[in-house]
Amino acid sequence: MDSIRKAAEASKEASYRLQSIPLDVRNKTLAAVAIELKKRKTAIIEANQIDLSEAKKNALASALLERLKYDEQKIKESIQSIESLISQEDPVGKVLSRMELDENLVLEKVSCPIGVIGVVFESRPDALVQISALCIKSGNAVLLKGGTEAKRTNEALAAIISKAMVEVDKRYKHAVQNLSTREEFRRLLELDDLIDLIIPRGSNELVRSIKAATKIPILGHAAGICHTYVDEEADLDMAVKVSYDAKCQYPAVCNAMETLLVHKDVAKAFLSVMAIKFELAGVELRGDGRTRQHIKARPMNEEDFSTEYNDLILSIKVVDTPAEAIEHINKFGSHHTDAIITRNKETARQFMDHVDSASVMWNCSTRFADGYRYGLGAEVGISTNKTHARGPVGLEGLTIYKWRLSGEGQIVADYVGPGAKKFRHRKIP
Amino acid sequence: MDSIRKAAEASKEASYRLQSIPLDVRNKTLAAVAIELKKRKTAIIEANQIDLSEAKKNALASALLERLKYDEQKIKESIQSIESLISQEDPVGKVLSRMELDENLVLEKVSCPIGVIGVVFESRPDALVQISALCIKSGNAVLLKGGTEAKRTNEALAAIISKAMVEVDKRYKHAVQNLSTREEFRRLLELDDLIDLIIPRGSNELVRSIKAATKIPILGHAAGICHTYVDEEADLDMAVKVSYDAKCQYPAVCNAMETLLVHKDVAKAFLSVMAIKFELAGVELRGDGRTRQHIKARPMNEEDFSTEYNDLILSIKVVDTPAEAIEHINKFGSHHTDAIITRNKETARQFMDHVDSASVMWNCSTRFADGYRYGLGAEVGISTNKTHARGPVGLEGLTIYKWRLSGEGQIVADYVGPGAKKFRHRKIP
Repeated sequence: MDSIRKAAEASKEASYRLQSIPLDVRNKTLAAVAIELKKRKTAIIEANQIDLSEAKKNALASALLERLKYDEQKIKESIQSIESLISQEDPVGKVLSRMELDENLVLEKVSCPIGVIGVVFESRPDALVQISALCIKSGNAVLLKGGTEAKRTNEALAAIISKAMVEVDKRYKHAVQNLSTREEFRRLLELDDLIDLIIPRGSNELVRSIKAATKIPILGHAAGICHTYVDEEADLDMAVKVSYDAKCQYPAVCNAMETLLVHKDVAKAFLSVMAIKFELAGVELRGDGRTRQHIKARPMNEEDFSTEYNDLILSIKVVDTPAEAIEHINKFGSHHTDAIITRNKETARQFMDHVDSASVMWNCSTRFADGYRYGLGAEVGISTNKTHARGPVGLEGLTIYKWRLSGEGQIVADYVGPGAKKFRHRKIP
Repeated sequence: MDSIRKAAEASKEASYRLQSIPLDVRNKTLAAVAIELKKRKTAIIEANQIDLSEAKKNALASALLERLKYDEQKIKESIQSIESLISQEDPVGKVLSRMELDENLVLEKVSCPIGVIGVVFESRPDALVQISALCIKSGNAVLLKGGTEAKRTNEALAAIISKAMVEVDKRYKHAVQNLSTREEFRRLLELDDLIDLIIPRGSNELVRSIKAATKIPILGHAAGICHTYVDEEADLDMAVKVSYDAKCQYPAVCNAMETLLVHKDVAKAFLSVMAIKFELAGVELRGDGRTRQHIKARPMNEEDFSTEYNDLILSIKVVDTPAEAIEHINKFGSHHTDAIITRNKETARQFMDHVDSASVMWNCSTRFADGYRYGLGAEVGISTNKTHARGPVGLEGLTIYKWRLSGEGQIVADYVGPGAKKFRHRKIP
């Protein structure tokens, strides 16, 4: 048997044991991990220094170096996020519904861990700490694969976390495992009988390549092509302010706006003001024919509307109706986050009903689509899936449920045929 | 562009329109479908007669002929199930949570249709009616592929249903489409950019072959290897009664028991009584070495414990502890439905915590694991997935949610940096 299957089987066995670790032990484990990270910070920073100097030798881009760096400040932030996780309510063991099927035959639907999660992430070693902590809180086993550029940091972190966990409770053996090579993770992606969910955290290319290589369910998003539609009944000052925020507040992220759609009747008034503000911020404007009748912008093709720039570049299109805006978004967007600016409540409702995206927004910035801002606490990721979990995903996304039926010897034969017993199906609060 | 991609694109477009069809129109559509089925029953039965006589010519097994038959009685049952669906509460548009992020910045998590569902089913034409009705109620578009042996019946049904729908509301155009060849469905399985969920209804072989052929999420189960564990503290009369029901009440189905696990201290007393009852019912018993010390049974290998018989055959194993039973179930079972018989509440809790199955049961028959018995109304299927929906799945399994954020011009920049506004994150009931 290959070593990765063996590791995954150990994870699966661990996941069964984790199902019954009570909240106080899980929280105690999180606290122990936090303490251990604090204690061992010198060793962690040393490992990171070696990764960093190697990365510099390999001429890694400075933005990547910045993400790779795991210093005292970042360790402190990791510890803070573990502490905030401790204070969060238990995501597992929640009774989601309770029903008396018949006298003393009671059905409960109870939240529980998913099982074994495979996580692949790029550069940032803090992702390893965060994901491990989320899995401890939710009772899942996890197999981690970080970027090779952070190999030593990740190995040090995984060893420290794993040791702290097992010292609190022996059932945590193999609950967190670190894979070192890309080939190992490729192999893992084939083990759909053992791995229950894959979470990719990184570039669109990474997510797309993982999606292509596995049958295991994936929680994530490959692209963030977000729109703001400025309606004919928009407050134009608000429209300028909100679309500026959506594009410029942090253009490198998935919930930043990539395309601005403008109703033809306000195009001239809105675009002329907006263009000045955006040009001052250094935004490169690209526009369809009608846009360029009003402002200076680079010509663009239809295909450009499906481009995620993640940069200070903006596609602009003039539309005739809200319906055309909706159609454009469903066709060219990535079903991530899309907003309408309008005073008309009915138009807003139509937009929010018909735009098939994880987050739909009215009179606010697409940048709000985020687990922290949505009040979910720690964020597992943002999903554009149509099953399981959609949009910003909190701890709940790492849980599923099981059905628990308790009786006193009831059999199905008694509920079948002439004179059969009848089900009550009475909801119990 | 190939014709199947074209059909799937038409489904996708239809799915956007369906998002906004209100409950009263959806219910009116269900009523219209029921009326039309009643009116056109002669044509349906005629089409079915041709399928049946062809199937007889091809020497189809009698059990399959029985399932293929769609006569006046079965049409009546289909209509009744549509009528009961009309009375069920709306699965979409439910506000699952509501939170004030800040003053007049309100976030809602609202249930909505998944989008486009691909369904493949064998023989039974009533499955076509049931699935179409479930999709109408939940606002999903559906692409159907039935067995070739039911080709004419399925075509007649799909045409009648689709026509009735479009007559009620033109937005239903292409909402239900029928595929005629296996090759077309194979092609559909590749369209993971357009199809959101695949539901296979049929044999384990069918489910397995579909799983192997697609990256689209699947709702279903490939196997039903269900266990009953008779604990040392079991009421043995109850254990005999419940395990008899689990095996014999309907052995051909996925929630019937395939393996009986017995604690060593009650093995002799329990097995000797049980064996008499099971032999009278014509159940072939297969047992491990310790079982055969107590009763007559065919010898068996360890591999046999992962066999789904779907027949009057039973594997039996004697175990030393509840923990050994749990380990056996997690290793050899299919994570579908497993039961414990015991008087000990703590042992039962341990069993239900540690057995990693969609349904875990205490002192009752595995045969209860079913959407109707669980009070879910119409059943979409039974899932052994660890994401989205698990166990018997009702209408809720055809829904997901979207996030709706409504503001009055709020921007993220105001919540960042020194002097930033703070989020309230106040839950609203």
